[in-house]
Amino acid sequence: MQVLIDRIKREGKNLGNGILKVDGFINHQVDPVLMDACGKEFSQRFSHIGATKILTAEISGIAPALTTGFHMGLPVVYARKSKPITMPDQVFLTLTPSHTKGRTVELIVSPEFLAGGERILIIDDFLASGATILGLVRLAKTAGANVVAIGTLIEKSFEGGRAALDHLEVPVESLAVVSGMEGDQINFADD
Amino acid sequence: MQVLIDRIKREGKNLGNGILKVDGFINHQVDPVLMDACGKEFSQRFSHIGATKILTAEISGIAPALTTGFHMGLPVVYARKSKPITMPDQVFLTLTPSHTKGRTVELIVSPEFLAGGERILIIDDFLASGATILGLVRLAKTAGANVVAIGTLIEKSFEGGRAALDHLEVPVESLAVVSGMEGDQINFADD
Repeated sequence: MQVLIDRIKREGKNLGNGILKVDGFINHQVDPVLMDACGKEFSQRFSHIGATKILTAEISGIAPALTTGFHMGLPVVYARKSKPITMPDQVFLTLTPSHTKGRTVELIVSPEFLAGGERILIIDDFLASGATILGLVRLAKTAGANVVAIGTLIEKSFEGGRAALDHLEVPVESLAVVSGMEGDQINFADD
Repeated sequence: MQVLIDRIKREGKNLGNGILKVDGFINHQVDPVLMDACGKEFSQRFSHIGATKILTAEISGIAPALTTGFHMGLPVVYARKSKPITMPDQVFLTLTPSHTKGRTVELIVSPEFLAGGERILIIDDFLASGATILGLVRLAKTAGANVVAIGTLIEKSFEGGRAALDHLEVPVESLAVVSGMEGDQINFADD
């Protein structure tokens, strides 16, 4: 998606160790117009998959999931990383390593909002190792729901996430594919 | 805003101790169409204030802030509760008590995205005691920015937040005002 790629080229920063800083428009300061365009793009790419619900992980997945949900007319559920007091005692919980936090985090969804038979579209900001998305897949499967597609804003193709999702045999769409981050460069698959 | 009040009446639950469960449409599962309508409503109520940026707190403020930002054509910054590695070492940080978490949390904003002279519109999901919003106000003031208005989806008017914000002398708009939560009831100011 050219508008996203252009924005990363203009404002993204390679901080080294595979860390791509995009917190001027995605995950600290957010550009709502760009997020809306990304949600619209996902809604077109996934118009045929018959999803009934969108699942994401707090925090940075919320913005693209929300705009995708708006354009597809679907509710959005974001997995929590800590259990709020409004959630029932019995929850779906899985553990996943967080690259950017350097530790294991919990992903928690209330059974009230993830039911058997749902057709789940997973949306997140990054596809890196695929660990967070695989955590969301486990939550969906535990609930008896089916993951029917996966969409991410930015894929770092050199971190192997796509291969890790291969066995799911569902469409995986990324709006910008970063193929390499040598030195201070950010290289895109489409370049 | 009648559509929000009606939704709270239909799906909200009074869990006791002033805890209002709205996680079927605001803060776990999110209804993107409702959030868009709330954002549009805020954009109309705040069309005259000349805001240059929207500030909110992760996590539950993100959805209404994003849709408000979309309708007003403004960037959204959400204060983080932990410092990600993409953030510079020097940050704006304040502490605020969290009612729902039962402990003090940090609110952190990067100086990259909060500059002196900005006109800040604060958007959040709840106005209860006002503690989180006052934390966001402190962050804005530290940056030399001016808070020009405050909007929340749901105000619990019996928790005193509006009085706590009085000294700011800015417009405070809430889309649904809950005036009491006796027993298992949820009473609205407009009823």
